[in-house]
Amino acid sequence: MASRICDSVLVTGSNRGIGLELVRQLADSPLPPVQIFAGCRDPNGPRSQELAQKHHDVITVVQLDTTSPTSIAEASKLVEAKLKGKGLNLIINNAGVNIPGSLVETGKQEMVDVFTTNVVGPMLIAKDFHPLLCKAAAQFPHQTSMSCSRSAIINVSTLLSSIKRCPENFSVSPMYPYRVSKAALNMLTCCLAEDFRKDGILVMSLHPGWVQTEMGGPEAPLTTLESISSMLKVITSLTEKESGTLLDWEGKNIPW
Amino acid sequence: MASRICDSVLVTGSNRGIGLELVRQLADSPLPPVQIFAGCRDPNGPRSQELAQKHHDVITVVQLDTTSPTSIAEASKLVEAKLKGKGLNLIINNAGVNIPGSLVETGKQEMVDVFTTNVVGPMLIAKDFHPLLCKAAAQFPHQTSMSCSRSAIINVSTLLSSIKRCPENFSVSPMYPYRVSKAALNMLTCCLAEDFRKDGILVMSLHPGWVQTEMGGPEAPLTTLESISSMLKVITSLTEKESGTLLDWEGKNIPW
Repeated sequence: MASRICDSVLVTGSNRGIGLELVRQLADSPLPPVQIFAGCRDPNGPRSQELAQKHHDVITVVQLDTTSPTSIAEASKLVEAKLKGKGLNLIINNAGVNIPGSLVETGKQEMVDVFTTNVVGPMLIAKDFHPLLCKAAAQFPHQTSMSCSRSAIINVSTLLSSIKRCPENFSVSPMYPYRVSKAALNMLTCCLAEDFRKDGILVMSLHPGWVQTEMGGPEAPLTTLESISSMLKVITSLTEKESGTLLDWEGKNIPW
Repeated sequence: MASRICDSVLVTGSNRGIGLELVRQLADSPLPPVQIFAGCRDPNGPRSQELAQKHHDVITVVQLDTTSPTSIAEASKLVEAKLKGKGLNLIINNAGVNIPGSLVETGKQEMVDVFTTNVVGPMLIAKDFHPLLCKAAAQFPHQTSMSCSRSAIINVSTLLSSIKRCPENFSVSPMYPYRVSKAALNMLTCCLAEDFRKDGILVMSLHPGWVQTEMGGPEAPLTTLESISSMLKVITSLTEKESGTLLDWEGKNIPW
């Protein structure tokens, strides 16, 4: 990346997979953000800790359990204190879970648990970090356009969130709780995009592709390195035109 | 209606509003279903009881709290017993809640409560009543086409479930928990339509319009009478082409 993607960024679910690789590539870029907040359910996880030690001037590991309103509220206070009066430019809501299984294997608990992590978490984060995002947007007083360097929320979604595409891929991946939660997340994205437009905050959903992670499995076609380097290119290029949309890691539009 | 809409139907949320009017119009039609199961959270509610007494040969009031897996499981056993070996042709998942409010007024509890009633309930009903729907579909052995007279699930959705339409109507009705839950319900509809296609069961989402009910308020443009008579015409006309779609009360397609 030729220019700095943003001054400050929070990535949730940074202990592994896509979140960990996002933090790694952001920190390793030629001009990294001044502050990277790596939100982790377990802040003492070995992989994010190792990364934070390597980039101790840039990365702060933040305890962030997206199922806990208290944890989210406390994380927002910690990030606010660390920013010392500045706003937060970018939030990447990456933390997510999948409980695979057919309809017969899916009950109330699975549905509510996956919804809580994948949808309620991002909603509470948007709500609690809203003042910091507004502050970041206001630091560009002469700018009316939107960007991730100014102020933005990226919700990590999936091709499986597309209701229109469901007939094509349902039989391969039934995954009721995951699909239902990610369609719900897309609606949250669109609501937040409308709600936060007046504040200059961009909100969109991004599909990282099918990636070789613990969730994606070894047979996935994309490495985390490939997926995240593409995603960061898309993130860098976003404008107000893309607020309220669902794009894939190559920037291609996915229908709702 | 010139012909019988179906032999047996279950309507959830029958104590008031759209559910009550659906049961009333079904029972009052020239050739009513042989059995109408009126699912109510409170089976002793005055309005559904009054209707059941008037049509005691047709209507059975069934205790059905869609937030309770036990209540749903017990309702399916009761309906099975009442059907005496026959299948259930049609389920209209009408029970739903709305907790209006801006983002600031919306917390984890509101999101999970609305999701549980509006999405988890219909999922558990589809699962527990699946054998009865399969049995109904199998009673038409020479029929490969789908219809509500054969075997179907109608999920009552809303225009506000459309992610594509969100930019047009968000500012008028923010309603985070409701919108998010109904987009999730649309994904459930699409998943079930794919899952149950092999069984000959039609599954679709239907938007009743903005109706003068306790939920819709007095300023709504449609009376329950108008909305439900239109909805029943659409329901009667459905074929396999409409399985996995979202239509309004006039049969017009709404984008996801």
